[in-house]
Amino acid sequence: MQDKLNKLRLQIDEVDDQLLEAIEKRLALVHQVGEIKQEAGIPVCDPLREQQMVKSLRQKALQKSVSPDLIEDIIRRLMRQSYVNESETGFYRINKGEGNIVIVGGHGQMGTMFTKAFKRSGYSVQILDKEDDITDENHFNNACLVLISVPIHLTVSIINQLPKLPEDCVLADLTSIKTKPLMKMLAKHDGPVVGLHPMFGPATPSMVRQTIVLCEGRHSDRYEWLVKQMQLWGAEIVVSDAENHDKQMSVIQALRHFTSFVYGFFLMQEGADVEELLLFSSPIYRLELSLVGRLFAQSAELYADIITSSKANINIIQRYCGMFDLMTEMLQNKDKASFIKAFEKASRYFSPHAAFFMDSTDVLLEVKTKQSSK
Amino acid sequence: MQDKLNKLRLQIDEVDDQLLEAIEKRLALVHQVGEIKQEAGIPVCDPLREQQMVKSLRQKALQKSVSPDLIEDIIRRLMRQSYVNESETGFYRINKGEGNIVIVGGHGQMGTMFTKAFKRSGYSVQILDKEDDITDENHFNNACLVLISVPIHLTVSIINQLPKLPEDCVLADLTSIKTKPLMKMLAKHDGPVVGLHPMFGPATPSMVRQTIVLCEGRHSDRYEWLVKQMQLWGAEIVVSDAENHDKQMSVIQALRHFTSFVYGFFLMQEGADVEELLLFSSPIYRLELSLVGRLFAQSAELYADIITSSKANINIIQRYCGMFDLMTEMLQNKDKASFIKAFEKASRYFSPHAAFFMDSTDVLLEVKTKQSSK
Repeated sequence: MQDKLNKLRLQIDEVDDQLLEAIEKRLALVHQVGEIKQEAGIPVCDPLREQQMVKSLRQKALQKSVSPDLIEDIIRRLMRQSYVNESETGFYRINKGEGNIVIVGGHGQMGTMFTKAFKRSGYSVQILDKEDDITDENHFNNACLVLISVPIHLTVSIINQLPKLPEDCVLADLTSIKTKPLMKMLAKHDGPVVGLHPMFGPATPSMVRQTIVLCEGRHSDRYEWLVKQMQLWGAEIVVSDAENHDKQMSVIQALRHFTSFVYGFFLMQEGADVEELLLFSSPIYRLELSLVGRLFAQSAELYADIITSSKANINIIQRYCGMFDLMTEMLQNKDKASFIKAFEKASRYFSPHAAFFMDSTDVLLEVKTKQSSK
Repeated sequence: MQDKLNKLRLQIDEVDDQLLEAIEKRLALVHQVGEIKQEAGIPVCDPLREQQMVKSLRQKALQKSVSPDLIEDIIRRLMRQSYVNESETGFYRINKGEGNIVIVGGHGQMGTMFTKAFKRSGYSVQILDKEDDITDENHFNNACLVLISVPIHLTVSIINQLPKLPEDCVLADLTSIKTKPLMKMLAKHDGPVVGLHPMFGPATPSMVRQTIVLCEGRHSDRYEWLVKQMQLWGAEIVVSDAENHDKQMSVIQALRHFTSFVYGFFLMQEGADVEELLLFSSPIYRLELSLVGRLFAQSAELYADIITSSKANINIIQRYCGMFDLMTEMLQNKDKASFIKAFEKASRYFSPHAAFFMDSTDVLLEVKTKQSSK
């Protein structure tokens, strides 16, 4: 038996070598496609061609009795790799003008990410940070874009300190709230103004298919080059008005971060043993705990800033807290019927998205497999 | 240019065909390995061999300047597929005795999963469900295992109704609380008794590398065959005493499910637009919202049962609620310094696991890519 197994294993190793070779070849070919596209200023990402490729491979897999989901997962993983590789090389430069790009807070994490992206596309980038006097007009004489990338609680005062900018210079910011910074930018600068909010962390390996929310300020025709540039990097631009953006962020950022914060702090207070919790976990809870833990691996001040950035945030947290009290009371009263009624009401609310939720979390049932063997 | 692109694309399609072929070959070879192992009663999963394979492929990838993470992800995805395929075929039967297996609640989701697994391993399985009279001794005359798989709130009373079982018959349950059912089983049956809690949902495609918590009852030597059988299916058995298990579950299940429930219910009450929330989301929040939404796609009664299954659960939820009130008050008082202090305290508590948390969630930064293109 051991003989038979050894023979099969040798064959498996051979097939794995073939796999590796094919993967290497594929990455090289896609790289060549990328180079041609970049020279021509065409976005690297081509969703239509991708869909066709995946569809045809799924059909071929079916004919061979191979799981179509398997081949789709593998081919998408390869595509992702190609995007990451592509974002390491150069990009076409949309704005052929002479002007340079000034990034205020360019040494921060998000500032660094944008600095790299602009440099790769051939722009000249100047970084200003804490040590620089940003009231000095000389920094901005030649700017075609001034991009504010500083902590939330500093954004408005930094914008306020800016000197007069060249008339055609675009003034933009990357803050995760939009109403106040946008108003301040419009008041400060007569030229083109736009508010941006990248919906991803600075650790994201490439901007391909990542969302950037855009809140229009003034003279959108004069910052069109910036939009096109970000699209060329692969980003998806979602246009929103600033008030609506901030309303959504109260839920998405402030409330969610705060609930995760309380949950993590509570586990500590209870003296819960994280090792034990992980040991007894289903893959889904392991992941939920990891998302809470992930929060605490990041900056306390950043989260304090996000959560306290508006009165609306505090208000929504208060309303949530009131709801939590009410629900806990219901539980204390052993009112199982009311719990079930409330649960079913919420189920109806979420039901149009149920398929999406199951689909996007089914993947995660597998995550543990990857982790536990590392 | 279009010509060049078309030529490259044809080449890419060719490579993809080669990839598909190699994948087909690999699955077939691993299937042969599985057959030999099953005949010999060796577990399909061989972590050591897997680690060696991954390590050697990572090194080969490095030599070719291919990302080692890429090749690891792909090979692990292939292994997972093989496990799923394997769990569709037969399994070696550890207990060669004459006895059959009686699953009480065998038409439920978890009962069905275990019924399938036992049948595949060649056991004769008898299912009892609501319509059957479980006080009837005749059902159990020939049983080598009676497995209780009914809703939590029924477990104890169902065990209580059981007639006298054969002396060597194993009595076991699959309930997600362990103290009470185990005590009741020990009181009811003089033979071998064991409490089990599968830490995965019935939708999980295979038991490979999934955790099953085991709480020892009596005569562990006489249910050893059951443990070996589950290990052969690929499950990892974690032994725990029942009290500790239940304590961990108060945090992992009751508190977590309850907080998700309140969060989801709150979004509904606020009239939040789920489409908009998803549009503005970072991949991480999209996932968090999906996990909340996933809850509501499941049974209200199951969750009501889990949450209200013990006084300890209600107590921990009350303590959490008190903490939430306190923290919200801190926020209302604009006490940013206290927030930062609390955050940093919790950071220290989580810090030994920070690398694990980042690692296991970094994968998820990519999840959106998969979803948004479906």
